[in-house]
Amino acid sequence: MERVSQSKPAGTLIHAPEITPDELQLAVRNHSMPLEALRYPITPLGLHYLLIHFDIPLVDAATYWLAVAGHVDKPLRLTLEDLKSRPATTLAVTLECAGNGRARLSPRPLSQPWLGEAVGTAEWTGTRLAPVLQEAGLKKGALEVVFTGLDRGVQGGIEQFYERSLSVADATHDDVLLVYAINGQALPPQHGFPVRLIVPGWYGMTHVKWLRSITVTDRPFDGYQQAAAYHYRTVEGDRGVPVTRMLPRALMVPPGEPDFMSRTRFVEPSTQIVEGRAWSGLAPIERVDFSSDGGRSWSAAGLEEALSPQSWRRWSARWDATRPGEYELCVRATDASGNVQPLEQSWNLEGVQNNAVQRVRVVVGAPDGRQIAADLR
Amino acid sequence: MERVSQSKPAGTLIHAPEITPDELQLAVRNHSMPLEALRYPITPLGLHYLLIHFDIPLVDAATYWLAVAGHVDKPLRLTLEDLKSRPATTLAVTLECAGNGRARLSPRPLSQPWLGEAVGTAEWTGTRLAPVLQEAGLKKGALEVVFTGLDRGVQGGIEQFYERSLSVADATHDDVLLVYAINGQALPPQHGFPVRLIVPGWYGMTHVKWLRSITVTDRPFDGYQQAAAYHYRTVEGDRGVPVTRMLPRALMVPPGEPDFMSRTRFVEPSTQIVEGRAWSGLAPIERVDFSSDGGRSWSAAGLEEALSPQSWRRWSARWDATRPGEYELCVRATDASGNVQPLEQSWNLEGVQNNAVQRVRVVVGAPDGRQIAADLR
Repeated sequence: MERVSQSKPAGTLIHAPEITPDELQLAVRNHSMPLEALRYPITPLGLHYLLIHFDIPLVDAATYWLAVAGHVDKPLRLTLEDLKSRPATTLAVTLECAGNGRARLSPRPLSQPWLGEAVGTAEWTGTRLAPVLQEAGLKKGALEVVFTGLDRGVQGGIEQFYERSLSVADATHDDVLLVYAINGQALPPQHGFPVRLIVPGWYGMTHVKWLRSITVTDRPFDGYQQAAAYHYRTVEGDRGVPVTRMLPRALMVPPGEPDFMSRTRFVEPSTQIVEGRAWSGLAPIERVDFSSDGGRSWSAAGLEEALSPQSWRRWSARWDATRPGEYELCVRATDASGNVQPLEQSWNLEGVQNNAVQRVRVVVGAPDGRQIAADLR
Repeated sequence: MERVSQSKPAGTLIHAPEITPDELQLAVRNHSMPLEALRYPITPLGLHYLLIHFDIPLVDAATYWLAVAGHVDKPLRLTLEDLKSRPATTLAVTLECAGNGRARLSPRPLSQPWLGEAVGTAEWTGTRLAPVLQEAGLKKGALEVVFTGLDRGVQGGIEQFYERSLSVADATHDDVLLVYAINGQALPPQHGFPVRLIVPGWYGMTHVKWLRSITVTDRPFDGYQQAAAYHYRTVEGDRGVPVTRMLPRALMVPPGEPDFMSRTRFVEPSTQIVEGRAWSGLAPIERVDFSSDGGRSWSAAGLEEALSPQSWRRWSARWDATRPGEYELCVRATDASGNVQPLEQSWNLEGVQNNAVQRVRVVVGAPDGRQIAADLR
């Protein structure tokens, strides 16, 4: 039986560490990026995080077109071929879900229960949005640009297409793309085939997939995903602050090998190079600090150049893991605007923007029952 | 903080519908196939289900080789190029996790909490295993073939490489492949790059990824994943029955559109064509039945030819959804050996082989608050 009788609306607060059946349905559908995939500068297809609000729509590219309409001089209808025939740009862009880290909050807001790995970096290929809008011609008084997806469903009791808006200034930024390829391949269905929006630096809800229409408006867009959802608010009824750009975050590849169930890590006594990636949508990453004692002491990690201004930077740190025992490894990013990851959760009603530092428990020393067969090589 | 203090070993029984923090860690790492992807005969890359016991290993194809050793006349070392230079075969194969449906059992065995969508069908390209074993030359007394992955970790308190065995008869079946490509592309890391095993008809634990070695033995293999895990047993301490081939299952694309949180479906009053796929590892699918009243009455669905003998068949059924109200849709597969999906769960300690019929709750009639914008097209 479907356990629908236990359904609670998204945003309900849960005062227990256990996950509700509704949250599980979302967790098995959507997926984060396994942390060992931080090893790849470009996340291989299939490992990038995915959050799909409703269902993945089935779109026929042959009959697809994208409407550009509303407060413009010349409405456009762009087929996939039209978009591909325009100048192409490829950008490596890091995307992260605004709800990343939600499931670590207490009480926990009921929604997709991310632990902290809802991220990925892909090479997105498409054409710049600004010249498309210029061709359509923004009328005087144009204020926002509304991006509507083909995905539809019910959220907050409201039947809706998924849609979000940007100010004209944000929408016409040079690196905003209408994208039709990822990592050199046509978009797969789950990433927005045939065309999606990419707005580097912004949290995941911005990059509308399965684009159906782009509508220029002369008033603020008040759709559900814009006006009701995706706000940082700590008191019910408060207007809150809209979620926009990604706060800084660093993640590490958990060292050693895992226990299947608990994911506790085991490392042989040795000197380890711990590595990971760090990003911020507010400013370039300037510093990453590493701790092997739960955040009591920190040392600066080494930093590599970012792949692109829109993507994460690799960091690495040496960890003297020669003494058996239990350790809590932490990593903390700082960006060039002085934004630093907090050590404590920043609790809010929707569970957005929780960029508290990652903590990974590692046991130095072999687990009991070591039975690895003699190496065949 | 990692919630490791609440860790319980895999296989513990949980007497509550809520999911433990450990199960959540597995659920956000691994992922099922969103049911709307049943529309595709071949599952697009990134939508196929994934269960990774330990971590995804990072393998350098340039220095990779696969050992074929043990009870053979001539041990082999095969590079990726060696394998690619052998005769290539492509097969469309349906894979399903043995634990699919585990999270619907009560009490629930603690492990990866699948609801029912841990499936996928891919076109796997590789070379047949039988000629490789023939070239190595099985010595007299050869009994089993052990497949060892490069992935390692701790399970059941035992540190291990992931490994499973097959009898010589099963391993030398004509359609057993050493695979290096999926859907026409090199295997991505999460599917076993550079080389994995594919054994059509068998549950997912059989298709060892990141193959490190193939070892012919003259005695039964008693590794953890073979002798302890993957058994159907209802009483602790019983030896149980090894899990082998996939029991029949049919799944449907849930019709209509979902509520974000509860995944309850809404359908406009109309006549609907409900569709899905059905498979069995025991015999070809012979019949699929559909019910719109929770399994009280059934009618035969239409069946298309299977893509290949190793893959699922598409089915479809007409549903008269003209009267508003709540419905429970069910679908049930029967194979040519007379195996039928049960209506009730088949409870067991590991939560394997739960192929009870799928049940999807659908509300006919628009949800409250309908606010879909006028269609722009």
